[in-house]
Amino acid sequence: MATSLIRRQLAVPLQRTLCLRAPGCRFVSKTAAKTHVEFDYDGPSMKTSVPGPRSQELLKQLGEIQNVGAVNFFCNYDDSRGNYLVDVDGNRMLDLYTQISSIPIGYNHPALLKLMANPNNLSTFVNRPALGILPPENFPDKVTESLLSVAPSGMSRVQTMSCGSCSNENAFKSIFIWYRNKERGLSGPTAEDLSSCMLNQAPGCPDLSILSFTGAFHGRTMGCLATTHSKAIHKLDVPSLDWPIAPFPRLQYPLEEFSRENEQEEARCLEEVEDLIVKWRQKGKPVAGIVIEPIQSEGGDNHATADFFRKLRIIAQKHGCGFLVDEVQTGGGGTGKFWAHEHWGMDDPADIVSFSKKLMTGGYFHKDELQADKPYRIFNTWMGDPSKNLFLAEVLNVIRRENLLEEVARSGKALMNGLYELQAQYPGLLSRARGQGTFCAIDVRDAETRERITLQTRDKGVILGGCGEKSIRFRPALIFKEYHVHLFLNIFNDVLAQHK
Amino acid sequence: MATSLIRRQLAVPLQRTLCLRAPGCRFVSKTAAKTHVEFDYDGPSMKTSVPGPRSQELLKQLGEIQNVGAVNFFCNYDDSRGNYLVDVDGNRMLDLYTQISSIPIGYNHPALLKLMANPNNLSTFVNRPALGILPPENFPDKVTESLLSVAPSGMSRVQTMSCGSCSNENAFKSIFIWYRNKERGLSGPTAEDLSSCMLNQAPGCPDLSILSFTGAFHGRTMGCLATTHSKAIHKLDVPSLDWPIAPFPRLQYPLEEFSRENEQEEARCLEEVEDLIVKWRQKGKPVAGIVIEPIQSEGGDNHATADFFRKLRIIAQKHGCGFLVDEVQTGGGGTGKFWAHEHWGMDDPADIVSFSKKLMTGGYFHKDELQADKPYRIFNTWMGDPSKNLFLAEVLNVIRRENLLEEVARSGKALMNGLYELQAQYPGLLSRARGQGTFCAIDVRDAETRERITLQTRDKGVILGGCGEKSIRFRPALIFKEYHVHLFLNIFNDVLAQHK
Repeated sequence: MATSLIRRQLAVPLQRTLCLRAPGCRFVSKTAAKTHVEFDYDGPSMKTSVPGPRSQELLKQLGEIQNVGAVNFFCNYDDSRGNYLVDVDGNRMLDLYTQISSIPIGYNHPALLKLMANPNNLSTFVNRPALGILPPENFPDKVTESLLSVAPSGMSRVQTMSCGSCSNENAFKSIFIWYRNKERGLSGPTAEDLSSCMLNQAPGCPDLSILSFTGAFHGRTMGCLATTHSKAIHKLDVPSLDWPIAPFPRLQYPLEEFSRENEQEEARCLEEVEDLIVKWRQKGKPVAGIVIEPIQSEGGDNHATADFFRKLRIIAQKHGCGFLVDEVQTGGGGTGKFWAHEHWGMDDPADIVSFSKKLMTGGYFHKDELQADKPYRIFNTWMGDPSKNLFLAEVLNVIRRENLLEEVARSGKALMNGLYELQAQYPGLLSRARGQGTFCAIDVRDAETRERITLQTRDKGVILGGCGEKSIRFRPALIFKEYHVHLFLNIFNDVLAQHK
Repeated sequence: MATSLIRRQLAVPLQRTLCLRAPGCRFVSKTAAKTHVEFDYDGPSMKTSVPGPRSQELLKQLGEIQNVGAVNFFCNYDDSRGNYLVDVDGNRMLDLYTQISSIPIGYNHPALLKLMANPNNLSTFVNRPALGILPPENFPDKVTESLLSVAPSGMSRVQTMSCGSCSNENAFKSIFIWYRNKERGLSGPTAEDLSSCMLNQAPGCPDLSILSFTGAFHGRTMGCLATTHSKAIHKLDVPSLDWPIAPFPRLQYPLEEFSRENEQEEARCLEEVEDLIVKWRQKGKPVAGIVIEPIQSEGGDNHATADFFRKLRIIAQKHGCGFLVDEVQTGGGGTGKFWAHEHWGMDDPADIVSFSKKLMTGGYFHKDELQADKPYRIFNTWMGDPSKNLFLAEVLNVIRRENLLEEVARSGKALMNGLYELQAQYPGLLSRARGQGTFCAIDVRDAETRERITLQTRDKGVILGGCGEKSIRFRPALIFKEYHVHLFLNIFNDVLAQHK
């Protein structure tokens, strides 16, 4: 029972020495640090193979209802806490994947449980409003206290949505509306605009496009999917739009060691972006907006330099394209800053920034001019969910109170150092270690070995995720401390040793 | 404070005589019935004009953050209960619009508050999982207990999603995947399929289409929006797809009085459907699916007969098109049956049925063959929200325990009788009364008068919604009793009298 966790936390030992699994490994000399996560467990504990017998039983049951091919195992969320996910067979795993990077401050955080116990919050959960027409009294305050307190530079407006895909879909729509209004100037839509759009035809439904990048992932609804190019299985058989796709830089890591090569690669990609903008304008499908992730996540944790993004931003401005930075996976602190785009050091980083996952609610920030000129243009029944704003406000309190962004930077440094060491130790197996904060990744020899290593690591009690063709991505919660880094590195090292 | 409502309910008088506002009105002779809604208020109570001073203050505050052009007023959801929405200025209104038809059993229903007080449910709210990979232990049971217990005929599979648009987007994708797999037969996708789809090109992203109807509303993300044709403001400036749009029958009401004319009109529309399917196949954009609402809601509460839907279903089968029934607004009991398509009396009404709103979670049921053949084809981070399934399970318990579908049928009959009487009384003002259950509508002389009547009715304490060009739609909760019908009719009559 989740409530009992708050009480039980006191029984958890706060300090322990590191598990010395592999006598020859490089991380045994580290002294154990306090976990500083008071509601955490003290380490993984595996009781069965995974999926265990109970998970297999449930897989069979759910298989009668849904395709369960992607289900790893079933979870006991009541007993999960902090950095540890507990499954239905009693296996307790250190979680470096956190529900596809969507759990900000660990499982059953006492602050969130406390929020649930507050009777003043009850009606927010029970009465989900149509936010666009009948918002609750505390909505402006809650949005100000939560989302606006982390608004990207230059943005004071935000629209909540229910999920990441809806956020990007509506961000695209905001860009299209803004772009057409710019074209129209002071005159409103023509009668032909209004009649043709009802039939899906131009000029009312104009032939505008969004420029995206190879390897990008922006969601799976049809508009988003036209800008997603991560894996064929995401796109196969779904009709799409003839929108331009620019190459995302394929950099060499560590970035600072290959600055000359990377600069050339980025210049090549930027040139291609401009060429495509011109080409699509000539084609009669002008590029109304550019969408990009600060770090391509599903597509393989592909980084680009701050210089690349600054130049891309200038290209967008030069050609009158809206600039949408998709922070659905990168936002919320994992990179050591609240937004990954803060690493670019820009006052005016974007026109729109979309978010979801760790922010508990979907949505997007935007500059004033990107606000739709009329009501009901950006609209749906729910327009988000105020109960998620409650959680977010509390998550932000915890992040500030516990200096979690600094902690992430510290853990991230330890994680990167560990990955560099492992990569040096297993040169034929690992390569291209890269990351910001704890938002890190490393490449494995091939896809098959990546799968095997991921499963073997899980069997030893650590959950990892894959991305791209053969990368492992690390997406721990913001409460992942140096202590957990070393715990992970020891176990990972054990697994890698088998593949040497 | 919401929790105190359970205790306070006992103080609410359960019986009262009807308010005799208009001495000459046709509804004063009705004797008052028990409300049977024990946590309800006993009537509207207006203290200020709407939006009142506090709402106006908040409008200004929220206006700094968002476009507030669609906001009616701000609500006090703590104090709202049953059929009554309370605003921040203390105005208490009988709600016949229920957050765009999305509140199933009224505000702060004791059963839902009780659910929140159960500590066993806490972790479901606090730890939102990535359902597609790591579902909670009780997920199969909860889905079985909730959604599967109301599965449409012929369907035993269901996929949850976060909102109505995502539900339809993914239903479209399921249809496209199913359609292409049928075409391929036993062979899998070709290398060309896999490479071309990464570039948004055929054959991997095939030029397939979804046939929709004039006046339809299926959501606002880009795929959905290509099938939405309700109002220009929903579609203007957003690029779309060249998909076929068939005429939705424009029937005369009451349906049974115009059966010959309506039959002709429906035959005309069905013929057009077949013509379009042939035409789009010749165009190289085969119709993979047909999407339709059982009652077009946003588009103006347009009905068609059971015969029309049965014949349309046959056309879909004849041409190998998936048949998607969008029950986002009609589903959940408002028509007096749980699904509006049950009124068609078919064993095999559809291939897919999408839902959201009153079901608290989005999603879609589908026949076995519509399940994607591989994992990760229908996928996103959250894939719904188990906390909403908890609410739905409880809502369904209440519906069964209190025989709410029968109650809706009874209230609906009283509402329709009242609307017929009013329409006879105000022939130049009202026309085309129509409905199933309490899912009713009536047309007003013109759009401007509709707006005025809606606002005047609200000023007297009743919330109504508009739809289509000049219709008023009635979307009360399932706990809307005959007592409330008469309360509404009296107030509505008062307002109409001013327009005679």
